[in-house]
Amino acid sequence: MKIPQEVYSIAEDIKTMRIRGASRIARAAANALKIAAQQFKEGNRNDFYKYIIRVSEILRNTRPTAVSLPNAISYVLSRFKREYDRGSDLEELKNVIITAADNFIKYSKNATKKIGEIGARRIVNGDTILTHCNSAAALSVIITAFKEGKDIKVFATETRPRYQGYITVRVLSREGIDVTLIPDSAVRFIMKKIDKVIVGADAVAANGAVVNKIGTSLIALAAHEARVNFFVAAETYKFSPMTVIGEVIEIEERSPLEVVSEDFLKSVKHVIIRNPAFDVTPPEYIDAIITEKGLIPPQAAIIVLKEEYGYALEDLMTKAIARVEESEEFLI
Amino acid sequence: MKIPQEVYSIAEDIKTMRIRGASRIARAAANALKIAAQQFKEGNRNDFYKYIIRVSEILRNTRPTAVSLPNAISYVLSRFKREYDRGSDLEELKNVIITAADNFIKYSKNATKKIGEIGARRIVNGDTILTHCNSAAALSVIITAFKEGKDIKVFATETRPRYQGYITVRVLSREGIDVTLIPDSAVRFIMKKIDKVIVGADAVAANGAVVNKIGTSLIALAAHEARVNFFVAAETYKFSPMTVIGEVIEIEERSPLEVVSEDFLKSVKHVIIRNPAFDVTPPEYIDAIITEKGLIPPQAAIIVLKEEYGYALEDLMTKAIARVEESEEFLI
Amino acid sequence: MKIPQEVYSIAEDIKTMRIRGASRIARAAANALKIAAQQFKEGNRNDFYKYIIRVSEILRNTRPTAVSLPNAISYVLSRFKREYDRGSDLEELKNVIITAADNFIKYSKNATKKIGEIGARRIVNGDTILTHCNSAAALSVIITAFKEGKDIKVFATETRPRYQGYITVRVLSREGIDVTLIPDSAVRFIMKKIDKVIVGADAVAANGAVVNKIGTSLIALAAHEARVNFFVAAETYKFSPMTVIGEVIEIEERSPLEVVSEDFLKSVKHVIIRNPAFDVTPPEYIDAIITEKGLIPPQAAIIVLKEEYGYALEDLMTKAIARVEESEEFLI
Amino acid sequence: MKIPQEVYSIAEDIKTMRIRGASRIARAAANALKIAAQQFKEGNRNDFYKYIIRVSEILRNTRPTAVSLPNAISYVLSRFKREYDRGSDLEELKNVIITAADNFIKYSKNATKKIGEIGARRIVNGDTILTHCNSAAALSVIITAFKEGKDIKVFATETRPRYQGYITVRVLSREGIDVTLIPDSAVRFIMKKIDKVIVGADAVAANGAVVNKIGTSLIALAAHEARVNFFVAAETYKFSPMTVIGEVIEIEERSPLEVVSEDFLKSVKHVIIRNPAFDVTPPEYIDAIITEKGLIPPQAAIIVLKEEYGYALEDLMTKAIARVEESEEFLI
Amino acid sequence: MKIPQEVYSIAEDIKTMRIRGASRIARAAANALKIAAQQFKEGNRNDFYKYIIRVSEILRNTRPTAVSLPNAISYVLSRFKREYDRGSDLEELKNVIITAADNFIKYSKNATKKIGEIGARRIVNGDTILTHCNSAAALSVIITAFKEGKDIKVFATETRPRYQGYITVRVLSREGIDVTLIPDSAVRFIMKKIDKVIVGADAVAANGAVVNKIGTSLIALAAHEARVNFFVAAETYKFSPMTVIGEVIEIEERSPLEVVSEDFLKSVKHVIIRNPAFDVTPPEYIDAIITEKGLIPPQAAIIVLKEEYGYALEDLMTKAIARVEESEEFLI
Amino acid sequence: MKIPQEVYSIAEDIKTMRIRGASRIARAAANALKIAAQQFKEGNRNDFYKYIIRVSEILRNTRPTAVSLPNAISYVLSRFKREYDRGSDLEELKNVIITAADNFIKYSKNATKKIGEIGARRIVNGDTILTHCNSAAALSVIITAFKEGKDIKVFATETRPRYQGYITVRVLSREGIDVTLIPDSAVRFIMKKIDKVIVGADAVAANGAVVNKIGTSLIALAAHEARVNFFVAAETYKFSPMTVIGEVIEIEERSPLEVVSEDFLKSVKHVIIRNPAFDVTPPEYIDAIITEKGLIPPQAAIIVLKEEYGYALEDLMTKAIARVEESEEFLI
Repeated sequence: MKIPQEVYSIAEDIKTMRIRGASRIARAAANALKIAAQQFKEGNRNDFYKYIIRVSEILRNTRPTAVSLPNAISYVLSRFKREYDRGSDLEELKNVIITAADNFIKYSKNATKKIGEIGARRIVNGDTILTHCNSAAALSVIITAFKEGKDIKVFATETRPRYQGYITVRVLSREGIDVTLIPDSAVRFIMKKIDKVIVGADAVAANGAVVNKIGTSLIALAAHEARVNFFVAAETYKFSPMTVIGEVIEIEERSPLEVVSEDFLKSVKHVIIRNPAFDVTPPEYIDAIITEKGLIPPQAAIIVLKEEYGYALEDLMTKAIARVEESEEFLI
Repeated sequence: MKIPQEVYSIAEDIKTMRIRGASRIARAAANALKIAAQQFKEGNRNDFYKYIIRVSEILRNTRPTAVSLPNAISYVLSRFKREYDRGSDLEELKNVIITAADNFIKYSKNATKKIGEIGARRIVNGDTILTHCNSAAALSVIITAFKEGKDIKVFATETRPRYQGYITVRVLSREGIDVTLIPDSAVRFIMKKIDKVIVGADAVAANGAVVNKIGTSLIALAAHEARVNFFVAAETYKFSPMTVIGEVIEIEERSPLEVVSEDFLKSVKHVIIRNPAFDVTPPEYIDAIITEKGLIPPQAAIIVLKEEYGYALEDLMTKAIARVEESEEFLI
Repeated sequence: MKIPQEVYSIAEDIKTMRIRGASRIARAAANALKIAAQQFKEGNRNDFYKYIIRVSEILRNTRPTAVSLPNAISYVLSRFKREYDRGSDLEELKNVIITAADNFIKYSKNATKKIGEIGARRIVNGDTILTHCNSAAALSVIITAFKEGKDIKVFATETRPRYQGYITVRVLSREGIDVTLIPDSAVRFIMKKIDKVIVGADAVAANGAVVNKIGTSLIALAAHEARVNFFVAAETYKFSPMTVIGEVIEIEERSPLEVVSEDFLKSVKHVIIRNPAFDVTPPEYIDAIITEKGLIPPQAAIIVLKEEYGYALEDLMTKAIARVEESEEFLI
Repeated sequence: MKIPQEVYSIAEDIKTMRIRGASRIARAAANALKIAAQQFKEGNRNDFYKYIIRVSEILRNTRPTAVSLPNAISYVLSRFKREYDRGSDLEELKNVIITAADNFIKYSKNATKKIGEIGARRIVNGDTILTHCNSAAALSVIITAFKEGKDIKVFATETRPRYQGYITVRVLSREGIDVTLIPDSAVRFIMKKIDKVIVGADAVAANGAVVNKIGTSLIALAAHEARVNFFVAAETYKFSPMTVIGEVIEIEERSPLEVVSEDFLKSVKHVIIRNPAFDVTPPEYIDAIITEKGLIPPQAAIIVLKEEYGYALEDLMTKAIARVEESEEFLI
Repeated sequence: MKIPQEVYSIAEDIKTMRIRGASRIARAAANALKIAAQQFKEGNRNDFYKYIIRVSEILRNTRPTAVSLPNAISYVLSRFKREYDRGSDLEELKNVIITAADNFIKYSKNATKKIGEIGARRIVNGDTILTHCNSAAALSVIITAFKEGKDIKVFATETRPRYQGYITVRVLSREGIDVTLIPDSAVRFIMKKIDKVIVGADAVAANGAVVNKIGTSLIALAAHEARVNFFVAAETYKFSPMTVIGEVIEIEERSPLEVVSEDFLKSVKHVIIRNPAFDVTPPEYIDAIITEKGLIPPQAAIIVLKEEYGYALEDLMTKAIARVEESEEFLI
Repeated sequence: MKIPQEVYSIAEDIKTMRIRGASRIARAAANALKIAAQQFKEGNRNDFYKYIIRVSEILRNTRPTAVSLPNAISYVLSRFKREYDRGSDLEELKNVIITAADNFIKYSKNATKKIGEIGARRIVNGDTILTHCNSAAALSVIITAFKEGKDIKVFATETRPRYQGYITVRVLSREGIDVTLIPDSAVRFIMKKIDKVIVGADAVAANGAVVNKIGTSLIALAAHEARVNFFVAAETYKFSPMTVIGEVIEIEERSPLEVVSEDFLKSVKHVIIRNPAFDVTPPEYIDAIITEKGLIPPQAAIIVLKEEYGYALEDLMTKAIARVEESEEFLI
């Protein structure tokens, strides 16, 4: 079973963050599956089945905690498996993967635009908006509102340690939008000038909690204190079905060298550098999640999950508790 | 295309607020469509189609921001369009409108009664209830509870500037209920005596926020501070499907002359009079919304919207984002 | 119509609390119906119908406010009634009851295990957990997590006046878990040491409010103050469909003699002893409800109710408002 | 003992509210004492003593719950009594009253100006200020800031039922300040536009709670919710020494006819009209009290009381507990 | 140096809690010093000095963390030392101790009565009051109000594990007051019926935090949530001067056998019993502290401390930092 | 009037932040006055007076908004002026300045140590402490606790943009303390691990609000949310007397080049860089301020100000309102 070099190369790019951003990662994974299907040469439909499962595993292992990545793979795989179960031949199976991958990519791109459309309706003339990190979905809202002629101002945080705020500032300034850069620590200081906060999401849990770039929950807290609306822009494939059955979304801890230099590290003893990539914003600090299917309160995340992953959830539930069913009862 | 005088007359009555109250407006609009159908004389089914669309527009434009009004019209129109698409003849089309209008009116009247039934179960002997403005649904709850033999007291606010509280006081006093009138500003002063707050709604948004008479959100805040239950009584046709796709419910600003006299206005310079008709109560201050379909937490408003307007929402979504699909991608 | 002695005996055991715990009561009721069906001797299918309804009433009246009890009976009865309406013969009717009762019992036992599975995923190594009273579902979560090898500590309250905390402490200590017993009043004192609170539920209302052993809402308040996660473990048959139509869950008031001795009571004048069995925890203090169908935010309780009792709800609604439909309109 | 007609006339004007406002009432009372001293004709120093005590009682009884009124009288009386105890002659006693009254009046007028000076330093260019009712001290702050050249906007509430907000609007508009009038119920609606709230006080309690025109505590609550600074402008003679020994400041209930017409009252049964004149704003909603002695946090009100009324407090304490000292011990 | 048996006996009674309650302990210690002075036989003034210091140490060590105990001793000792420094003879020294001890005892008894007087002014007709444990000062307030003819009701908690609430209930019932006993866990359940909470204090810290019987802070939290006034009744000798210089008030941990039986303890493994005697209520949950010097907001505790212990504080400060002064500077 | 080069040099070092930290600046200013006095050569006592005033102005203008700087100068100057008014000769005047400057410096150094002593008493074994920026007073508390043998861990923020957290980490690591560095944005993420927050202060206002390094108020908010104690360590000369008369403490805005590079600035349009040096933490988020005079609640800051600056405050008040006294009354 020979996996194409391009698949390995995409997997590597995701792992090393040359490909970044929840949506871009998801589309890259779908594309890798498509390439794999196109380049499959030797073997019958059963070989193809094993081959595709193998490719999926390689991709899935690049960033094990991302939610959009396994969701994209599941999107393609569930269609593929249904076709396989019907006994379709190799050519049909290849086609279903190619089509599903294309559909996912198209869907993903459109979703971000729709979020811009829907979210922009919440922006009114004269709004001052705060954003954090560099989220395609959040920027889609801001730029759409600006292009509709609304007079807006934006504050963007630096977003230490990787300074994604600088990219945000460049993108917005290029569009002609008035933008102010602030250190992360100045968030409460400027909150009284802010009318709305809009951020992206790396994952949305069943209870509406949002996992996003470190610092997000602190901004949400300050917005909540000051009665400033806090919006999260997130495509529905960022909603995590695993959280329905209790799985916790793991918070990635990154290298200390993103924060300090190697020289500094050597020069001090007893010093640990913590570099958590994300934090969790509780649903009570979120006014609404803007998805491509509409604006929902965070507590309705479970509805999105039931609609999107209804069957998959049953499946997860069944597997998850299989051994329980068989085991002895341990409580009277 | 001759529109009957009665339709114009109803439209005028809504515009000038001779017909007031979200449910009454909705029923009046349904009735106007019925009259229009009955009085249509000359033309074929296609002429009738255009005529009905025209009548709908006239009605819709009377109070452009009301939610129950377009929902009532949609109720009738969606049934009419389905029949039209089936190729039904003129007589059938007239009938479908007459029947749909009658059904809506009957539904609306029953809904308010059911809300009374359901809400009254939350009222216990000895309760002291605060209400604001003059809401048929809220009064339905209070009066039903009283008629069930529960010993209750009611506090009603004046509801400046239009003093709708005086009507509330008259209605309740006529029923034999002990009622106390207070100025709007005394709400926090008397809150410790209150067991439950019950108000109506002009509109309910997708995130469970409630648009109602100015002052409602202040009462909700004071109730929240004092751990007093806050209930909203609202028929499901007051839920706004447009908010799912991000539309903001516009807050009507009324004439300064409802607040001050013309003489006063002339006698002062540099003075602006603000007279917003409604405010927005955030879902975290609302314990439950009492609908004719049952009692729901505000965060479940989205479920009501999906159940009631499932198809319509898909439709809204599709139209809303049509141009997006075609446009160039603007984010990498 | 002779009711078997065993049915009376089970009813008596529920009434006198020899059978305790929402799930155990529910299973006992299902079992009583099964026994009744098996022992029915003389009569035709119509006699059997009346007999089963009578048995149901006897069981239902043992603890009129419990939610799992009528839900268990409804589970069996709804299947029975459907079969009856189809005109099935006596033997078929007996079988449907026996099968439904068995299924409910099996479902119930599995549900508690699944909750353990799902809830245990939220427990991480090193967690200190607080629990209250003696809930099978909450203990299922704790013990499952411990059996998975997680290093946990537990604090358990005494749970005056019946000291169910002592049973909890025994059960956990027997499993080998480190457990600390505290008086109920020490809850805020130790809250800073706690990572998660897990309690059971006697009933869950449509708005996500949880009825559980007295003291639960105080613990939830203290957890909320200290930003400690508060979880409720509850099988879906504890969700109360009646609350959707506004019914209030009645709080049982128990005998003063559970609190003080008869001698004490005689020795004092002007003294009342209050002994409420349960209190109500509002949804805003609950992070998630762990059900056998997954983890949901409390505000999504209405979804569980709609999924589980969809038809039954329609039915409730219809009956509840029958007389309203017929009555005169009382509001213009 | 003949009391001059002018004294009665002033007392009547206070009682009927022709003289309004805590500071004006206080100055009027001081002035009445001065007039009484000047017009005293027949009698020796002992007669004069009784006469002055009598005059004080007449004045004190006009509005028994006002704090500035008894404080003004105490200011004059304490100086008078000290002189009397020294055995001074009639002429000296008259003079000490005249001088003390003049000093109080001068002090009071200057105090309001100083509050304007001190408070204006907290106003910055571009501030939008909300005020309630018609407070000389609060207006002193606003007008001083405006005269210093600061560009400010003001929102004023109507202040039902007596519409004192109209006077406020006139005064500010005459100064050339941009002012917007709103109904009392619109306070939360416009709070996001507000930078600072400034109100007056009728009384300040030992714990920093502020008694002011009905509606004040509701505004404070809304300001607190929105993280808007809430300032109270109050001369130190509005601080109530009686509250140190536990006295509650009584809330005046005014005539229903200030709220509704006599006709309305006659036309309804079972209807009570509540018209509380004041409410109590708790210290946690107040950022600072602006006094002529400087800006203090409300919790430091006790310091002002100890500084201003140190001796008087000892005295109050002694009297208040005289009978306790003599009574039997009732606790072991 | 022979210490009288009576002194040892008092010390033992305090240690074993035969003498209970902060004020009673303080008075017992003063009395022991008086007895010691009276019974001192052999030796000169220097011997007497050493003897008294020794007696003080014995007393102080009985309950090392109590605040009223060392404050009572300091009250007597500071007077004694001043006299000693003046070179007074033995008889004079004995007298100063006897007089100071008598004065303290008299002061203490009167203080509790004055607190009753002052606190009772905050109780109004119809009030329902919640109290916890068995505080002489809190009961003084309640009983004084009742004797003044006010119609009041009282709720008292059981106060596990020692059930001091039963004594409270007996005392109040004997006075003829309507009293209801509740389990500690029912506090939030009944909070909506409560108008005021009144509890005692074991110690008051410089920041106004109150150390009192375990469970107090939980009640304060529930009162705060429901906007119910929370009062602490505490004599000024319960204010802890040591907290001004940062000392933490140690929370006594009592024997597990107050909570469970020895048999229970033996029957379980891995089980710890926690039995903290007190908890700390933060100042933001306390509306006022009722002292014999008047009603103060908790944040003014520092004023009481400065007034009562001004000199002592300077002294504490000086000693506490003596070694700092001499040590090398460790920060540039 | 020749000002010594050393004075200019010190002034320059303060201005350019070679001398940093509120206490170091204050001591440097005192030292500069001492040097000036020592090096004064030509002139009489009147010349010396003018010379010293001039030197004071030069120093005061270096960082106009610092509070410890003018307080240090006032400390020396007030003693000098008193001596001058007594008619003392040049030598005596020189000496008073030298002595006062030495005393201030000694006082300042000791104050920081005392704060360490007092604050360390609040640290218990096992505490995890969070600190922000690099405060000598806060570090004094932490290091004193550690040297007392307490087992503690410290988290330090980076403190963008100047990274003062790196200095903090080096200092603590050199002492042998376990320290973890985190980005500013990770504060809420790690708050659950924290037992106490300790920060310094640049200024303390009359209402207890604390001005400190940007980000402090955000940390205080997160600590408040999680019920973590928040302490401020501040010498009493950081308390601002000007705030008593309403002066606002100005927040310094620093160069954008501390945040971004010049190249970045040139490469973007429409981009503003905000770099506020400080923010304001409201008193309700501060548990205690640790001063060298003891631990006080923030609301007692006014007491410190009255004690330290009693006379000066009267003076400030008098001057501030001089023109008011003379002006016409502007309010009736």
